[in-house]
Amino acid sequence: MITVYGYSSSGNCHKLRLLLTQLKREFKWVEVDSTAGETRTAEYLAKNPNGKVPILERDDIEGDDGRIMTESNAILCWLAEGTPYWSGDAWQRAQALSWLFFEQYSHEPYVAVARFIRGWTPLDSPRRADLPQLRERGQQALAVMEQHLKVHPWFTGDAYGIADIALFAYTDVADEGGFDLAPYPAVRDWLARVRKTPGFIAMPSPPVEAASRMALPD
Amino acid sequence: MITVYGYSSSGNCHKLRLLLTQLKREFKWVEVDSTAGETRTAEYLAKNPNGKVPILERDDIEGDDGRIMTESNAILCWLAEGTPYWSGDAWQRAQALSWLFFEQYSHEPYVAVARFIRGWTPLDSPRRADLPQLRERGQQALAVMEQHLKVHPWFTGDAYGIADIALFAYTDVADEGGFDLAPYPAVRDWLARVRKTPGFIAMPSPPVEAASRMALPD
Repeated sequence: MITVYGYSSSGNCHKLRLLLTQLKREFKWVEVDSTAGETRTAEYLAKNPNGKVPILERDDIEGDDGRIMTESNAILCWLAEGTPYWSGDAWQRAQALSWLFFEQYSHEPYVAVARFIRGWTPLDSPRRADLPQLRERGQQALAVMEQHLKVHPWFTGDAYGIADIALFAYTDVADEGGFDLAPYPAVRDWLARVRKTPGFIAMPSPPVEAASRMALPD
Repeated sequence: MITVYGYSSSGNCHKLRLLLTQLKREFKWVEVDSTAGETRTAEYLAKNPNGKVPILERDDIEGDDGRIMTESNAILCWLAEGTPYWSGDAWQRAQALSWLFFEQYSHEPYVAVARFIRGWTPLDSPRRADLPQLRERGQQALAVMEQHLKVHPWFTGDAYGIADIALFAYTDVADEGGFDLAPYPAVRDWLARVRKTPGFIAMPSPPVEAASRMALPD
């Protein structure tokens, strides 16, 4: 059995729930509220010294060391190994990895962080001053995605797979970060295609307090 | 033949030069000075819409699309496929991926960016105000590495490989970003081990102007 430690309103965590559900794979989910300090306890830091969600834990490996995997996109790769969600030759699989790295370096730090600041920081937080710049950089990432999707239906080679799951997670809730997807029609079409894949599940609604903050203008 | 487009003073680019050299693989290097706007030309953006170095281009694939790979760590994976630099079972290979994602999300944006700001922005750049925070976050990444290296000799499973190459690139020049590695003895020992691997080559010295800026205190 595998256990995911994750925060349900985190796109990084939802990636794993989505793939595991689509793989029809049994798993246990332990809710860890990273926005309430639960990734900073001694117990959690023993599992992931980097203090982030999600992590995946296996119970079929002996000993404390090496049972845990960190980093959402690495976990996606391990779960998808040998499945149609990460297939093709080495070049195609590495092209999917390229999108996974793009997601973590050029997309998540802007699209996800803008959503986090809007939903999970106080309305007078000084971090809100960062929103215009985050919005600008996030739009650059969306434009790169749009350019790809004008020509290709998916990010994972010829079929839906882990690079789509990774990029879908925060793009689907980009509006909560104050992003307008109107200028990106190919991205909107792709989001709709992902939502129709077999076994798809959406990310749960955010907590009421976060949702009410995100409903306000910046 | 493969061509790397890269800036020689970029750790992300040096990763590829180091692995290719250690693999004894022939390659062509096209110097692209990303600090002088050379990744923002129409010609370059046609190769990588995300406007970053490095990219790898193959001449053995027909057509314009699909010949190029972006993202240094994805390229490392493709180059290392089937070699001892990324081996082991699926779990071990994904653990190496986990470190590659850690490098791009939790290490490079702090350790590399602090070096970039110190060397490649004017001495009166407002970006220099970010240095204390970058230093703090970079130290967190170095502490996570230290904790791993107290128990394990390498980041790529049981042997030196691509996760070591990726993390080495900017850790080896962390001093240029104003980082003191004295509190991280296991990191310093690992750097020394990497430097002794067969075929190792160090990153070229930075340009004179960058070097002279980095020689100054913040």
